[in-house]
Amino acid sequence: MQLTRAADYGVRVVVHLAGLAAGSRLSLTALAEAVEVPEQFLSKVLQRLARHGMIHSQRGMSGGFALAADAEALSLLDVVEAIEGPIRLNLCLGPGVGCTRQSWCPAHLVWAEAQEALTGVLRRASIAQLARDGARVG
Amino acid sequence: MQLTRAADYGVRVVVHLAGLAAGSRLSLTALAEAVEVPEQFLSKVLQRLARHGMIHSQRGMSGGFALAADAEALSLLDVVEAIEGPIRLNLCLGPGVGCTRQSWCPAHLVWAEAQEALTGVLRRASIAQLARDGARVG
Repeated sequence: MQLTRAADYGVRVVVHLAGLAAGSRLSLTALAEAVEVPEQFLSKVLQRLARHGMIHSQRGMSGGFALAADAEALSLLDVVEAIEGPIRLNLCLGPGVGCTRQSWCPAHLVWAEAQEALTGVLRRASIAQLARDGARVG
Repeated sequence: MQLTRAADYGVRVVVHLAGLAAGSRLSLTALAEAVEVPEQFLSKVLQRLARHGMIHSQRGMSGGFALAADAEALSLLDVVEAIEGPIRLNLCLGPGVGCTRQSWCPAHLVWAEAQEALTGVLRRASIAQLARDGARVG
């Protein structure tokens, strides 16, 4: 039960881009160095973030990657789920998943409560706030 | 970020055994049927639970598996961690793991808070209570 490397890297990228001055763009190489992720791996992470409308890329000499979403409205949970898909702490918590034990299983409610506790913390953490925190400490 | 099947099955086993009358033992076959898990997979789960002193097995005609731990003192977190090892929501939360970004990374504190929220719910869920809940509803 652990966050994937891709999701961790996705969060690094989005927080880093949110901390840049408006209109700034970073090349893949500069971004990879800033977030300490190999370029090839980062490239896949960026594709997924772009597919979810969180970043956009521009080709050419003055091109690069920039945040496309409003960092105040973007949560850490949004970024994690863009990379990993919806968080389901246990298979039985997915929509339309018919575990035959679900109606009486005493653990089911605890899994649901644990998932809500976990996702609640990630949902309350805005990317803009994380970028401000990083700028203050970094 | 999802519980392994083995951990889910481990919880099923321990809750089921905690709900039996004192002194009861169940064969592998009977236990597999009760918790709806293939015998071969269950066998591996039982080995890990035994290694952590949560269940014990007795050979012979009147043998079988029984709970070895005090169900009141045993939490859902204990069982999950017996199977999966300590929950580390992100690699940086492990002991002795030196992520170079840790001292200033703004996400680190959120990962730690999310992990505490998740494990807190699992820690407060006692196996004895789950067994009573299951007996009431089942």
